[in-house]
Amino acid sequence: MSFQPLDPDFENKIKESFYRQEFMDFIGAEISDMGPGYCEIQVPYKKELSQQHGYFHGGVIGTLADNSGGYAAFTLMPSDASILTVEYKLNLIAPGDGELLIARAQVIKPGRTLTICRPEVFVVKNGVQTLCATALMTLMALHGKPDSPEEGSK
Amino acid sequence: MSFQPLDPDFENKIKESFYRQEFMDFIGAEISDMGPGYCEIQVPYKKELSQQHGYFHGGVIGTLADNSGGYAAFTLMPSDASILTVEYKLNLIAPGDGELLIARAQVIKPGRTLTICRPEVFVVKNGVQTLCATALMTLMALHGKPDSPEEGSK
Amino acid sequence: MSFQPLDPDFENKIKESFYRQEFMDFIGAEISDMGPGYCEIQVPYKKELSQQHGYFHGGVIGTLADNSGGYAAFTLMPSDASILTVEYKLNLIAPGDGELLIARAQVIKPGRTLTICRPEVFVVKNGVQTLCATALMTLMALHGKPDSPEEGSK
Amino acid sequence: MSFQPLDPDFENKIKESFYRQEFMDFIGAEISDMGPGYCEIQVPYKKELSQQHGYFHGGVIGTLADNSGGYAAFTLMPSDASILTVEYKLNLIAPGDGELLIARAQVIKPGRTLTICRPEVFVVKNGVQTLCATALMTLMALHGKPDSPEEGSK
Repeated sequence: MSFQPLDPDFENKIKESFYRQEFMDFIGAEISDMGPGYCEIQVPYKKELSQQHGYFHGGVIGTLADNSGGYAAFTLMPSDASILTVEYKLNLIAPGDGELLIARAQVIKPGRTLTICRPEVFVVKNGVQTLCATALMTLMALHGKPDSPEEGSK
Repeated sequence: MSFQPLDPDFENKIKESFYRQEFMDFIGAEISDMGPGYCEIQVPYKKELSQQHGYFHGGVIGTLADNSGGYAAFTLMPSDASILTVEYKLNLIAPGDGELLIARAQVIKPGRTLTICRPEVFVVKNGVQTLCATALMTLMALHGKPDSPEEGSK
Repeated sequence: MSFQPLDPDFENKIKESFYRQEFMDFIGAEISDMGPGYCEIQVPYKKELSQQHGYFHGGVIGTLADNSGGYAAFTLMPSDASILTVEYKLNLIAPGDGELLIARAQVIKPGRTLTICRPEVFVVKNGVQTLCATALMTLMALHGKPDSPEEGSK
Repeated sequence: MSFQPLDPDFENKIKESFYRQEFMDFIGAEISDMGPGYCEIQVPYKKELSQQHGYFHGGVIGTLADNSGGYAAFTLMPSDASILTVEYKLNLIAPGDGELLIARAQVIKPGRTLTICRPEVFVVKNGVQTLCATALMTLMALHGKPDSPEEGSK
């Protein structure tokens, strides 16, 4: 699918928004790729992110799915809009056993109010990628409410 | 709903499992209540858990929903079983604006193989609780695979 | 939960909309109860609604969940709005083995644009009700687009 | 994705199961294609399948998504197993305005117990296909319970 971004400066807008999310820094996540209707986020393994068997915790997998989907949709929003996760559904299909998580989200259906995305999360072990979760997600644009520091946080 | 736990020692089993999840310690989460078919998890606010507007990040909200649902189901499992999140769907219905998150998950339908739970996440601001997310979740029991350190692969 | 309807004539609005859905007549469904934020739909068993084991087909169960949720949300909409199902997630938890299906949907969170509902479907066998499906659903109001025959494109 | 069916006679097994679902005949649905891990179901428009604006009812769209996903998973099951829909999540993304619905479901992750599918439903208007719904679905195999008339009904 090929989409036309409404905000030509969408890359900077998204990087700025992402780096104001302290939780992303806390877990060590980085945006590793993006394009119109697409966003990829990575997080390397560290023990603090693990569940009881030492793998990536499902909460980290869900966080990456949610965030990659949100920013994939945000690439297509006009500059004066912010974005809200309405809901998502996530299937966990393999354990998060590896040295890196990569979430890749693709917009399936953009819309003025609602946008539908499909985030997928891969775990990389010894360089081999395995699909560990797949999601289906709905996001809502808030027009006239830019996602900027002045408008947003307190 | 009232359920009969198959493992009379379920509380210790769950506490042990929970405290081996390093991600729970990292975000500052604690089990605040549990019973047969029920689990409650809390996490106090800290800046490291925030999204771009300073509220609790959706990933933290999803993490608590997922984990409270998993442990609610786990209360009803026999001692030789471990538990796996198959999938969940989460609706975010209010911003995570407050000093504390509380996730409460209730088993709706227990089963030998599959168990269905309904996790809800509340945000507490100045002592007032607001529902900020509701979920519907499917879990699978793995019989003959105890959730213990010896069994759990490192 | 107690809600204030914006359209005092919501019962007639919903009955009119429901009876213009030819599929409801085709499967034999009737609205059996409604109130602000609530809708109940029933369908008696007939062989034409069955799956391969003679039970109510999952498609009929899903249809009732979807429709009861849609009309539960519609009870709270203003008279000049129509309603759209954005998405739903349905867990099938018992076979549809019985003489009657009853879907009951409750609004969890109303909103100007989006409304969240929880539909549940019960199957009645020899007078005993069993929960056979539970859902979580998102609906969107279309303001300025009444759900009337004149407006509704043929 | 390419899958190896465990039952070489899967096509006949599925046709037999499908044609015992009276609801499929009632709405006029037919299997139009299948292969290992894949199933396609079509239903032509008739007024009895419509919602209040004359389009295909969402319940019919959901029914096709559910059934195509179920049979896609069933193509990969051994001959002594039957299949159960655990749950699905469906996003409705365009009105069902057209002369034909086509559901196409693909297995994403097969498993001995659980299988994950992605059903998509297209509406065809004047020969042009539009994606009108996308789903994500979990199915469970019941081993040792063949889906045959002797075993199944009542």
